[in-house]
Amino acid sequence: MRSNLKMRGVFLAYDHGLEHGPTDFNEKNVSPQYILDIAKAAEVDALIMLKGDARAFYRRELGIPLILKLNGKTDLYKGEPFSTQNTSVQEAVKLGAAAVGYTIYFGSRYEKYMIREFGKIEEEAHSIGLPVVLWSYPRGQSIKNDESPDIVAYAARAAFELGADIVKLKYPSDDSNLNWIVKSAVATRVFLAGGKKLDEGNLEERLTKAAEAGFSGMAVGRNIWQSDSPVDRIRKIKEIFK
Amino acid sequence: MRSNLKMRGVFLAYDHGLEHGPTDFNEKNVSPQYILDIAKAAEVDALIMLKGDARAFYRRELGIPLILKLNGKTDLYKGEPFSTQNTSVQEAVKLGAAAVGYTIYFGSRYEKYMIREFGKIEEEAHSIGLPVVLWSYPRGQSIKNDESPDIVAYAARAAFELGADIVKLKYPSDDSNLNWIVKSAVATRVFLAGGKKLDEGNLEERLTKAAEAGFSGMAVGRNIWQSDSPVDRIRKIKEIFK
Amino acid sequence: MRSNLKMRGVFLAYDHGLEHGPTDFNEKNVSPQYILDIAKAAEVDALIMLKGDARAFYRRELGIPLILKLNGKTDLYKGEPFSTQNTSVQEAVKLGAAAVGYTIYFGSRYEKYMIREFGKIEEEAHSIGLPVVLWSYPRGQSIKNDESPDIVAYAARAAFELGADIVKLKYPSDDSNLNWIVKSAVATRVFLAGGKKLDEGNLEERLTKAAEAGFSGMAVGRNIWQSDSPVDRIRKIKEIFK
Amino acid sequence: MRSNLKMRGVFLAYDHGLEHGPTDFNEKNVSPQYILDIAKAAEVDALIMLKGDARAFYRRELGIPLILKLNGKTDLYKGEPFSTQNTSVQEAVKLGAAAVGYTIYFGSRYEKYMIREFGKIEEEAHSIGLPVVLWSYPRGQSIKNDESPDIVAYAARAAFELGADIVKLKYPSDDSNLNWIVKSAVATRVFLAGGKKLDEGNLEERLTKAAEAGFSGMAVGRNIWQSDSPVDRIRKIKEIFK
Amino acid sequence: MRSNLKMRGVFLAYDHGLEHGPTDFNEKNVSPQYILDIAKAAEVDALIMLKGDARAFYRRELGIPLILKLNGKTDLYKGEPFSTQNTSVQEAVKLGAAAVGYTIYFGSRYEKYMIREFGKIEEEAHSIGLPVVLWSYPRGQSIKNDESPDIVAYAARAAFELGADIVKLKYPSDDSNLNWIVKSAVATRVFLAGGKKLDEGNLEERLTKAAEAGFSGMAVGRNIWQSDSPVDRIRKIKEIFK
Repeated sequence: MRSNLKMRGVFLAYDHGLEHGPTDFNEKNVSPQYILDIAKAAEVDALIMLKGDARAFYRRELGIPLILKLNGKTDLYKGEPFSTQNTSVQEAVKLGAAAVGYTIYFGSRYEKYMIREFGKIEEEAHSIGLPVVLWSYPRGQSIKNDESPDIVAYAARAAFELGADIVKLKYPSDDSNLNWIVKSAVATRVFLAGGKKLDEGNLEERLTKAAEAGFSGMAVGRNIWQSDSPVDRIRKIKEIFK
Repeated sequence: MRSNLKMRGVFLAYDHGLEHGPTDFNEKNVSPQYILDIAKAAEVDALIMLKGDARAFYRRELGIPLILKLNGKTDLYKGEPFSTQNTSVQEAVKLGAAAVGYTIYFGSRYEKYMIREFGKIEEEAHSIGLPVVLWSYPRGQSIKNDESPDIVAYAARAAFELGADIVKLKYPSDDSNLNWIVKSAVATRVFLAGGKKLDEGNLEERLTKAAEAGFSGMAVGRNIWQSDSPVDRIRKIKEIFK
Repeated sequence: MRSNLKMRGVFLAYDHGLEHGPTDFNEKNVSPQYILDIAKAAEVDALIMLKGDARAFYRRELGIPLILKLNGKTDLYKGEPFSTQNTSVQEAVKLGAAAVGYTIYFGSRYEKYMIREFGKIEEEAHSIGLPVVLWSYPRGQSIKNDESPDIVAYAARAAFELGADIVKLKYPSDDSNLNWIVKSAVATRVFLAGGKKLDEGNLEERLTKAAEAGFSGMAVGRNIWQSDSPVDRIRKIKEIFK
Repeated sequence: MRSNLKMRGVFLAYDHGLEHGPTDFNEKNVSPQYILDIAKAAEVDALIMLKGDARAFYRRELGIPLILKLNGKTDLYKGEPFSTQNTSVQEAVKLGAAAVGYTIYFGSRYEKYMIREFGKIEEEAHSIGLPVVLWSYPRGQSIKNDESPDIVAYAARAAFELGADIVKLKYPSDDSNLNWIVKSAVATRVFLAGGKKLDEGNLEERLTKAAEAGFSGMAVGRNIWQSDSPVDRIRKIKEIFK
Repeated sequence: MRSNLKMRGVFLAYDHGLEHGPTDFNEKNVSPQYILDIAKAAEVDALIMLKGDARAFYRRELGIPLILKLNGKTDLYKGEPFSTQNTSVQEAVKLGAAAVGYTIYFGSRYEKYMIREFGKIEEEAHSIGLPVVLWSYPRGQSIKNDESPDIVAYAARAAFELGADIVKLKYPSDDSNLNWIVKSAVATRVFLAGGKKLDEGNLEERLTKAAEAGFSGMAVGRNIWQSDSPVDRIRKIKEIFK
């Protein structure tokens, strides 16, 4: 099996329904169809969805590579975070995915079980040629500041050591040495996570710095589908990571 | 395999024996036969039972589609809720079920394990053509008000993201925007849970609002089989969701 | 495979060695052979044992159906009760058992794991024609009075919902409506658990009431093998449940 | 497969390296070879070792039956004891073992998981003809005195109920009724555990009492290989249990 | 399968990326390529890496035996340590490894689960001819001083009992009887762990003592790749353990 995932550019993320509930959505973007339309029009490099969305809306014929997210949790439980697998690698294959995604909350009391679960996914996915994307998010009581450059670089490195092809990271609070994060990830491509909607200038400045430092792209959600001009915004970001 | 489940209408629920004990029952409705007789006479769109009831009373030849509930718990334990699987998907097939059901208590400390268990059930059931119904009930110490519209909409959305065909939800305490719940569920059909017995007028008003907002039906138990005219009540509800 | 278990009468229970240690025993009844001799002489309807006893003493040729108890625990640990499976269904088949038994402590913090384990046993046993007996014992910090009629009726109902053929229950502290317990169990046959040795008159009065209320039999241990006339006592109980 | 284990006599135990560290050892007995030499010279009835020792030193051709211990723990962790399986039954077969051994700490918070794990081992070993030895050691916060005669008798009985062929027990603090322990174990052969090194007279007195009460032998370690005349001591004990 | 691992000499360790994050690295040694270049130039006896590094950089044709580390954790979580398996033995084979490595934190509340996991790995690896290296590190609340000679000797012994071919140990705070550690490990080869960078004289003194006491080699990381003359330092250590 050959994956059609491009390891660079803009990935349009839409897993917020499970992670946050529909509170991020409005009348338009509450539907995955709206997201698919944007993805198609803007020619995003990949679309990130959960199994429910993919089953109902995704078709490989759309020509947009799908990264199927295999684990998830709600934000209703407030204790130490543990995002468990809800979708098998075989299901990703059935749904036509070009890659699979998984979140590890490093530093959580449950880190150990996510590392183990990810380990199996990584091997199964790679054994059939599917790239693996790791949401590498230090979180939990042990983590005082998940945006400190050291913590972000640690998250990048852990993803590489565990075999991820792509790592999705938060933008660090101090961006004076973004390249160190990229170097820490070695052969793993570094993508920026989007986070809350930022004003456009602010976002572009960040992305430009990241791209110059060697980041390969951005996995972006709210900043796109909460925007009035989503296709334009994607194109601008694509331009930055060309 | 083709399921004969209609994704709309009235589902007659009768899993209270494990969840609450026989305290909800009287001399008549303590027997599943009484429920089956109502179901047959009123032509309900589906019957919801556990394995024990189905093994002893259900026959596919009755012409009433069965939704077999695969997990459950008593209300005797008062800690964080975790409803574990007691019935396999293969057993549902043996018992002639048209669909399977599962409860996730989102927000519970055990949410993570229910998400994982449901994930496997969802894939196995769908792989053989059985629809999946999710009882999507936020509950546990983290949940202050499980009837708030935001929480109910979150429950609807989580069900969609995880691949449920039908989600069973509580009626929100504020019903000014029921349609948002339906939209949040996207392609997952939304059914109202019954809850404690209400007076008839009150119930009909709620159902009419729900139907107008796009709800597909109701999964109702005590409001029917504790009633003096169960068949009539079902017919009225069926009329509302026609 | 056809089970030779009769769903009625007197089951002679002898699983006290693991549950309580030999403290219940004397020089005679410390040996399973003594129990087998009684069982044979009194023609009990079934014998209840654990794997160790059955392996050493039981032979199908004895003509006494064996109910092999698949889980158990000591009373040395004082925390929330969890009785785990120590014997497989396949082992029950090898040992010539006519049925399998399992205890669930409803209300315990570990209820959820016993429900799950029992669920698998129930399906495997039934798939090869072995009846399933559930020791349905509410217990743990949440249970204030495990002899209240409501709790006993709940235990009966839960056993039915989970697919048990026979449920073993405590005698309720208030016996004014024993028939409600039987009705709550629906198609599951209700057997009385024995408990500590009672004087004979007291026991017979209870059993007569239970039999009149529709109980199918008694699973009795200490009241028999601690008695000076065990065979007579069994025969009297058999008479009551004829 | 036929086991060559004799169910009587002296078993030379040498699993102290994992359980206590090398603190029990001196320059000679730190090596398993020294133990094997003693075993050979004294013609012990069995040798007890862990996988590491057996792989490096044991050969079936030595003519000494091997009891391979399948679980173990260090004494570094001070919480409730849980000795987990580190060796499979299949590995015992590969290493030429004549029997397998397992410890259950009855009364521990983890008793339930050891009972479950032992249950599987017991069935797998017996299915291929390997006898099973249970180290039956009540321990943990619930156990006030693990040498009380009641507790030792309980340990004996639990081993029988769970299917052990041989049970290894502590010597009770009150030895006025040792035969009750033997009777409690029914068909399971009772072996005395050695414990700390005792003076020779003291030990012989105990063993003679135990043998007269029906104990089948002794599993002895430190009392032998910390002694200046290990072969003589074994021969004396063998004489007692002839 | 025949392993090409030499059981003696210098193993170059580079698993710090997951264990500590990139904080140990500089612009050069942040890349596994730099480590491989050193390994090649200095002809180390083995290279220790995690799956991510091996997948991206290691080729069997390099002629340097690979010890693939199968478990790991970050230092972000501060509770009782539990390093879980993230790589299967089969993956080690695919990646061309000559041996596998695993860490057990003896004394941790999770010791029991690491012993169990290691037990399976040990058997699977040995069944296909792969040697097994154990990082034997007492750690957790129960361990007051993990450098005390008794604790280090215990760690050595436990590794032997569990079947490790090589054990990696800390240098004890009191080195007056290093040979006791070697004897405690019996047939398991003892390697010194490196730890923080030491000045060269200090390190050489330690290594010489260790070699004289019977240690087989050193697994060294920071002391090499943080050094200005890594190849020279390796050669000096190789000389010591020749």
